[in-house]
Amino acid sequence: MLPKGFYCNGLHSGIAKQNTKKDLAIFYSETPAAAAGMFTFSRVKAAPVLIDIERLKKYKSFHAVVANSGCANACTGLKGRKDAETVACETAKCLDKAPESVLVASTGVIGRFLPVEKIKKAMPELVKTAKEKNEKKAVEAIMTTDTFAKFISKKIKVAKGEIIIWGCAKGAGMIHPELKGLHATMLSFIFTDAGIEKKQLQKLLEESAEQSFNCITVDGDTSTNDTLILMANGQSKTGKLSKNDMAKFKSALDEITLSLAKMMAKDGEGATKLVEIEVKNLKKRADAKKIASTIATSPLVKTALFGSDANWGRILAAAGRAGVDFDQSKIDVYIGNIMTAKNGMALNFDESKAKKILNAKECKITVDFKSGKESSKYYTCDFSYDYVKINGSYRS
Amino acid sequence: MLPKGFYCNGLHSGIAKQNTKKDLAIFYSETPAAAAGMFTFSRVKAAPVLIDIERLKKYKSFHAVVANSGCANACTGLKGRKDAETVACETAKCLDKAPESVLVASTGVIGRFLPVEKIKKAMPELVKTAKEKNEKKAVEAIMTTDTFAKFISKKIKVAKGEIIIWGCAKGAGMIHPELKGLHATMLSFIFTDAGIEKKQLQKLLEESAEQSFNCITVDGDTSTNDTLILMANGQSKTGKLSKNDMAKFKSALDEITLSLAKMMAKDGEGATKLVEIEVKNLKKRADAKKIASTIATSPLVKTALFGSDANWGRILAAAGRAGVDFDQSKIDVYIGNIMTAKNGMALNFDESKAKKILNAKECKITVDFKSGKESSKYYTCDFSYDYVKINGSYRS
Repeated sequence: MLPKGFYCNGLHSGIAKQNTKKDLAIFYSETPAAAAGMFTFSRVKAAPVLIDIERLKKYKSFHAVVANSGCANACTGLKGRKDAETVACETAKCLDKAPESVLVASTGVIGRFLPVEKIKKAMPELVKTAKEKNEKKAVEAIMTTDTFAKFISKKIKVAKGEIIIWGCAKGAGMIHPELKGLHATMLSFIFTDAGIEKKQLQKLLEESAEQSFNCITVDGDTSTNDTLILMANGQSKTGKLSKNDMAKFKSALDEITLSLAKMMAKDGEGATKLVEIEVKNLKKRADAKKIASTIATSPLVKTALFGSDANWGRILAAAGRAGVDFDQSKIDVYIGNIMTAKNGMALNFDESKAKKILNAKECKITVDFKSGKESSKYYTCDFSYDYVKINGSYRS
Repeated sequence: MLPKGFYCNGLHSGIAKQNTKKDLAIFYSETPAAAAGMFTFSRVKAAPVLIDIERLKKYKSFHAVVANSGCANACTGLKGRKDAETVACETAKCLDKAPESVLVASTGVIGRFLPVEKIKKAMPELVKTAKEKNEKKAVEAIMTTDTFAKFISKKIKVAKGEIIIWGCAKGAGMIHPELKGLHATMLSFIFTDAGIEKKQLQKLLEESAEQSFNCITVDGDTSTNDTLILMANGQSKTGKLSKNDMAKFKSALDEITLSLAKMMAKDGEGATKLVEIEVKNLKKRADAKKIASTIATSPLVKTALFGSDANWGRILAAAGRAGVDFDQSKIDVYIGNIMTAKNGMALNFDESKAKKILNAKECKITVDFKSGKESSKYYTCDFSYDYVKINGSYRS
């Protein structure tokens, strides 16, 4: 359920080759909304990312996010920027709002120009039909190699009424968020009818991303286009939130971002399973995270996961190359609840039980360093034939 | 051709499951030899690596390297160390030399104990038959998922006669050298009959590795076992080398390490092609290397290479996430001799010509930043279905 005052829709405008694939989405608020954003840390930034970063710095309130799949509008130079501005301008015209109140996002093949005329032609209908609030259509329009539409909402009770938070995401490939300040990865748009001012909204978003989008990987490849936007339009009319209500809001936002992040890892290109990697009991959280991220990204670990092979040696080998100093003779490794290595050494364990655990749709690996109190979780997926298939012929 | 005074052989001792797979190799010098070594920088180091590091620090001259495939002797604790010492000791006994003059190396599955009794039983025959100098058999005995035996030799003329350098390597998986001081990756043994003292030998090896093993990747996964050893026994009787002869020696050594490194990249697990990534014209060489390494390791680039898809956008995306600051509007990208992007933007190019270039057994990608004079090369391979197949079921 969309928050009060928000509308959305998605349709096929002609960017995608197949004419059944929706490729253009709009999300908008009738009233002005505060907005926060995080974008790819890549040095190669797509045109829409450059525009959004500028607008979020410069302006206070926003009305819409317009997003397309099928074309990344990255590595398209000044023409790319003009194209993205034209799309924003056209959207604003149809909404009867200021052009700079529209944020833009793109995903798809790098190095192609946006078919602006097709988008312009489709915009009036897209905006008109957004009143239907077709969430599924809107989210489908930003999907690329995703196999299901990812969106979720939560309603929270606060002192002066109810607040809704709604979020969506697309993932699948080029997924390895590493959010730094105003920098993030993948497409995700989150909307709420809470009334929260810009600065606080940005802080909430950054903290929430740190425990969600910042802890997933599909292939270790960070994209040129990744965009995370949070808009709050205050239409719940619940006023300024008390400390207690703000804590509730934060907790609901964190649940939403973590759910979306896990959906992205689960739906990684070619993935057959979602794998949680927990690295426990080190002195520094940053070290735990570095090790968890290295294990989660290792091609050898990920192919073993695909084969449901309890090859814990590869897990330790990946930990070893993470660039963190540790004592290998203290480490225990668990596949699900089965201890496969103790104090850095092989244990006799039931291979068929371990295989069964790894054969499930979701499984967990725990690496316990027994050297401190800091831990970190990372979510990843396996590396399958289909990953190679999807990416060996992506453009064709 | 082995250098003077060196002997080698390989046989099946029973470590490998199939009884046709050779799994134990010896390389030895009758006279004492100076030795230099570089080992994995991983925090999880296999028993033989720990032993070699100690011995190279402590002792001045060595007689042999004994190496096995089929078992990494990693994550095996104190028992693992004792096992490796027993193997060295047994080798020394058969050679009638001091136990500490034997270096050891292992490759294979992590977390399994060495079948020491089988190795002991096979050692007398291995040592006896080493007089045959069967290079191919010795190198085959250290192969795991390698598809061909990698060895090469060079003869150089110096003032006082002739020097031979001979080197071998095994690679295929867990390959991403990042040599730091006394740290390296993969198995490679190089022998020469030149007379070079230990300190200089170590320096030569480190410099040579920097331009060879340090510039290749298969999967970005650094191993727990990787070992590079260079031994010089002086049996060419060419005395202390003049500056000029030393330069000749260095150049031959560099050729040997680069050839072996390229063989390893070419024979990466499941690889169908060898790809050279050249990152050109940045201000710092370290930055060029960082970008080349990130491109060479990117799963999205490597799967596109497998599909012979001239997807230069992924090359730029990988460059963007390398953690190096640069101006994206200056970059040109070439596939072979075809310019596919200019000043960070798409160009119209002949896709079928580019596909033809990428379909070859060897191809080159050049990324020109036009912002300085420093360049770096990296060698990699593509990511294929077979990579997943090999690694989804490695232990079984």
